[in-house]
Amino acid sequence: MKINRNIYLSNVDAEEALRTYLQAIEKNFENHKTEWIEVIHSHQRITSSPVFAKYSSPNYNAAAMDGIAVKAEKTFGASETNPVHLFRGKDFIDVDTGDPIPEDFDAVIMIEDIVEVEKDCVEIIKSASPWQHIRPIGEDIVAHEMIVPANHRIRPVDIGALLSGGITKIEVYQKPKVGILPTGTEIIEPGEAIEIGKIIESNSRVFEALVKELGGQPNRYSTVPDDYDELKKNIARVVAENDLVIIGAGSSAGSEDYTVHLIRELGEVFVHGIATKPGKPTILGTIEGKPVIGIPGYPVSAYFVFETFVKPIIQKFLRQKMIPRRKVEAIASKRMISSLQHKEYVRIKLGRVGERLIATPLSRGAGVTMSLVRADGVFFIPQNSEGVEAGETIEVELLKELEEIESTIVSIGSHDLILDMIEDALQKSDEGYHLSSAHVGSMGGIMALRRGEAHLAPIHLLDERTGEYNLSYIKRYLPDMDMALIKGVKRIQGFIVQAGNPKNIRSFEDISRKDITFVNRQRGAGTRILLDYELRKRNIDPNDVIGYDREMMTHMAVAAAVASGSADVGVGVLSAAKAMNLDFIPIGEEEYDFAIPVKYLDTDMIKTFIKTLQSEAFKETIRNMGGYGIEDIGKVVLISS
Amino acid sequence: MKINRNIYLSNVDAEEALRTYLQAIEKNFENHKTEWIEVIHSHQRITSSPVFAKYSSPNYNAAAMDGIAVKAEKTFGASETNPVHLFRGKDFIDVDTGDPIPEDFDAVIMIEDIVEVEKDCVEIIKSASPWQHIRPIGEDIVAHEMIVPANHRIRPVDIGALLSGGITKIEVYQKPKVGILPTGTEIIEPGEAIEIGKIIESNSRVFEALVKELGGQPNRYSTVPDDYDELKKNIARVVAENDLVIIGAGSSAGSEDYTVHLIRELGEVFVHGIATKPGKPTILGTIEGKPVIGIPGYPVSAYFVFETFVKPIIQKFLRQKMIPRRKVEAIASKRMISSLQHKEYVRIKLGRVGERLIATPLSRGAGVTMSLVRADGVFFIPQNSEGVEAGETIEVELLKELEEIESTIVSIGSHDLILDMIEDALQKSDEGYHLSSAHVGSMGGIMALRRGEAHLAPIHLLDERTGEYNLSYIKRYLPDMDMALIKGVKRIQGFIVQAGNPKNIRSFEDISRKDITFVNRQRGAGTRILLDYELRKRNIDPNDVIGYDREMMTHMAVAAAVASGSADVGVGVLSAAKAMNLDFIPIGEEEYDFAIPVKYLDTDMIKTFIKTLQSEAFKETIRNMGGYGIEDIGKVVLISS
Repeated sequence: MKINRNIYLSNVDAEEALRTYLQAIEKNFENHKTEWIEVIHSHQRITSSPVFAKYSSPNYNAAAMDGIAVKAEKTFGASETNPVHLFRGKDFIDVDTGDPIPEDFDAVIMIEDIVEVEKDCVEIIKSASPWQHIRPIGEDIVAHEMIVPANHRIRPVDIGALLSGGITKIEVYQKPKVGILPTGTEIIEPGEAIEIGKIIESNSRVFEALVKELGGQPNRYSTVPDDYDELKKNIARVVAENDLVIIGAGSSAGSEDYTVHLIRELGEVFVHGIATKPGKPTILGTIEGKPVIGIPGYPVSAYFVFETFVKPIIQKFLRQKMIPRRKVEAIASKRMISSLQHKEYVRIKLGRVGERLIATPLSRGAGVTMSLVRADGVFFIPQNSEGVEAGETIEVELLKELEEIESTIVSIGSHDLILDMIEDALQKSDEGYHLSSAHVGSMGGIMALRRGEAHLAPIHLLDERTGEYNLSYIKRYLPDMDMALIKGVKRIQGFIVQAGNPKNIRSFEDISRKDITFVNRQRGAGTRILLDYELRKRNIDPNDVIGYDREMMTHMAVAAAVASGSADVGVGVLSAAKAMNLDFIPIGEEEYDFAIPVKYLDTDMIKTFIKTLQSEAFKETIRNMGGYGIEDIGKVVLISS
Repeated sequence: MKINRNIYLSNVDAEEALRTYLQAIEKNFENHKTEWIEVIHSHQRITSSPVFAKYSSPNYNAAAMDGIAVKAEKTFGASETNPVHLFRGKDFIDVDTGDPIPEDFDAVIMIEDIVEVEKDCVEIIKSASPWQHIRPIGEDIVAHEMIVPANHRIRPVDIGALLSGGITKIEVYQKPKVGILPTGTEIIEPGEAIEIGKIIESNSRVFEALVKELGGQPNRYSTVPDDYDELKKNIARVVAENDLVIIGAGSSAGSEDYTVHLIRELGEVFVHGIATKPGKPTILGTIEGKPVIGIPGYPVSAYFVFETFVKPIIQKFLRQKMIPRRKVEAIASKRMISSLQHKEYVRIKLGRVGERLIATPLSRGAGVTMSLVRADGVFFIPQNSEGVEAGETIEVELLKELEEIESTIVSIGSHDLILDMIEDALQKSDEGYHLSSAHVGSMGGIMALRRGEAHLAPIHLLDERTGEYNLSYIKRYLPDMDMALIKGVKRIQGFIVQAGNPKNIRSFEDISRKDITFVNRQRGAGTRILLDYELRKRNIDPNDVIGYDREMMTHMAVAAAVASGSADVGVGVLSAAKAMNLDFIPIGEEEYDFAIPVKYLDTDMIKTFIKTLQSEAFKETIRNMGGYGIEDIGKVVLISS
């Protein structure tokens, strides 16, 4: 690979960049120091040389049973008709399990097989074979045999074997010291007063934990503002004090600029610009020969750049091989388009629905930390691929245990805060099930059920002809499936407006006023259907509603838009308004239920789900939230087609 | 289950015992305390309540690109033929990524899409849609949404999301304090002078590491000798200071007895005696209502009893579900017989040979710590099963990553210390391969190749007719397989005798002397074939050799038997004698090579193996050991059939 050091942002293949970079910094690994530590404190440390046993274990021939130690040849010929008598002190001694066998004896007879016929005399009726019931010296460990090789990560059982082999200290690689330097004038510390334009520093804390997991020693420094001289001084200091340095940029272009120029000034920049999304503005450099990596500020970028470049470097310091993550095949539930310009890391939510493992992409924004929190795995769209279509089989690298994923109820449909509460309640129960909910609106949920991608779909769909909720939609859109409804909550929908309702919004007519900015829900959302129904009833043209095109995926996002002042009103549920300290003008009650194929009702997972809804503890939680009717919660209604 | 508290040792099913016991101690889990800790120190801790975001993230509408913020409606109609001019301060402001978007603006135009036509005036030729290139408030996290549920183990990414959501402290379960009390008069501390009859205490250190891995707080106490009053005082103190107590028995019957009587005296014994092998003398009890578990002294028993009973209790304190280990199907390479009396935990070595995963049982002794160190997995033989035959498919619970197992070269055959050295050299190389070697003698290795259970077999088989090594055996026993030999070492065999050779052993005739005790190798071992050949040549009757029937599996075990004084002489290699500071009388040189099916020669694994043998570094290691000729090491000889 030829790296052009003059281009501002290159577009280098990540694997290629890593390979070249690792070669360039190889000396650091070769020269990495070792230290001698106590075996009892060696858990998770990496041996730098093989460890050979000092003693055998057991270090003597030991009785493996309670009984008597004898000389086998003195017992030969013993039988029921020809019992042999042995005398204490002369022919045998008493031994307990673990006792040493004296030189003159070579077998143990179990206590059950001897009869004391008189004082100090026992009778046996079966001969002993030489070395029976004796743990020979070295049965476990033979002196000088290798207990663990070099480059081995010490597990609890290794500690046991090392100690048993007489080893009290071992030589291990020093933990590589990883300096973590956050930068950016807009960055504030967690707990500082939050202001518009300020961003809470969190990446360095994620790095700290990741470094620890890998066996490194994180050294986190205070955030340095975007000041050239200040940065220069700090970078030089962090490089001097560590084996590897991560410079975390703020999210602004400015702080990234400073970083690359400073690394070039103090050392050498090998790569600036990687063909991945997220993670493009990565910087791979050295200062005083030590690896220095500039990591972009967006949290998801930061995470993947750490995984792609920092993790292999820490592993190299510790001579650990990258064990690839477990991979599974899954069906893409959505189309995922990607550019030919880069490799893309798509965070994936997985669920076992029937026989199929379903992969649903999470938010692809580089700033969406929650996509990492919620992810079960990652799907890599290669650089030269335009992506995949829904229904294609894709390979997903797991971030969680498959066993945990398999016990997850997959909910796709409309969002409500009670889903969070159900997840929490399931997590607290003994059964070990989880709820994963994707928020695509009610109709999106119905479609997901039709495609077999979800166990259940939370929906609130108003039939404009009958005024009835949910049932008619299921019959119309899922006519060939045996379906049921698990009744959920009656939910009050209303206008979410600024506290005090300063613009005096009372009716649907008000939201088309010229001085009012609306914020909408996405097409297919039950709330959107309700809005469109009410607008049509009143002959209000959606084009007259300012902000009608601004679509939010959840009630909370609508409330947040109102709270920020970027909209005056949206339609949503009481709990969202309350959560953001906004006012709420009720416009009606709707039925928020769970559509579910009948075949899932009998599974343990869904039985637990229903039991949870019906439980007094859960009802109490919902009552405390307010804005819900729970008369029918957990009832199952079979739908006749 | 009805537990009879009077029987000394019952034979209770392990699952049943655990279920009953967990119920009996349930109050401990319910009453377990929580604490508030800093998010930045919360890695691996378990939330005791759901955590909701305090702020949205971003907490303001933010520019997602560098460029200008505009009011979208002022750009409507812009095109190449109808460019629109915007004025700084009035129509737009400059923004960098992350900057807040002021109230009056609702879109960002990228810097690439604007042309500065005069000072403070830009031209655009494309209209902006409302909210383009803006990260809306709450895009990542919406205030009051749940970031993590209760009973969730905090991962690095969770720390990032929590901090971004404005959370600095969270409520977690306290780490359960696990008191670990070793007992036994025969027990000495690591590092103390080793004596016959003394056992180095190691179990408590294994427990410490296991408790930490599970998220508990281990408190290890000094070993208490088998003194009733002393033990009583200490147990009471440890119970008072901890949430859960493990009493580690010495290996002698005495210390187990004391433990059960003392728990009964101070509290209650629920179970004494579990139907598992190893692990039978387990004690499940309570003192002051707290769980107190008596764990047998043999290291393998101790490990499995911890896994079976202590681990689930720690997980209950932390409300963590047992995620079952990954299981794989494998072919049993050996018969494994078990008693109907108990469930047995068999430690398994796995290897991928061709298409099949092969499971080879490791030593089944309860005292063989190394069987845990070497194990890739565990096979559970149920209580009511007599075991399995060779060739049967069994289910193995993995103790290592399957990916690591898949990159392991499976060697079955004759033992030599150079195998340890090869394993160490592979571990140090970059390729990431491992060597697993099972020691069953040369003929055992040949048979393993025939059954397709090994990649290669280290052998040293003398053809008595031709005096040639190895080739003729391969041709005779593997006539249908395309085979090769990877040349290994020329190895000096000889008599291993006490230092100074006090019994003056010089010849094969000497070993049949009446004052000499011999120690033998197992049938099929190359050394055994050599011995039998030499005895037959001299017309020496094996029945005249005292100790001929005592068979050891390795050279080191033979040397250890001589070192301990339990034998005067054995046949083996120089390195084994040297390692135990014994004398060595050479009797000849033999060829220790690796038999291998030709089809494996082309695999990356075997290429690395050969490269390792041929490397200068490895040759240097072998030269330093002494006793080997390495002229041909790493040469490949194809065998014509």
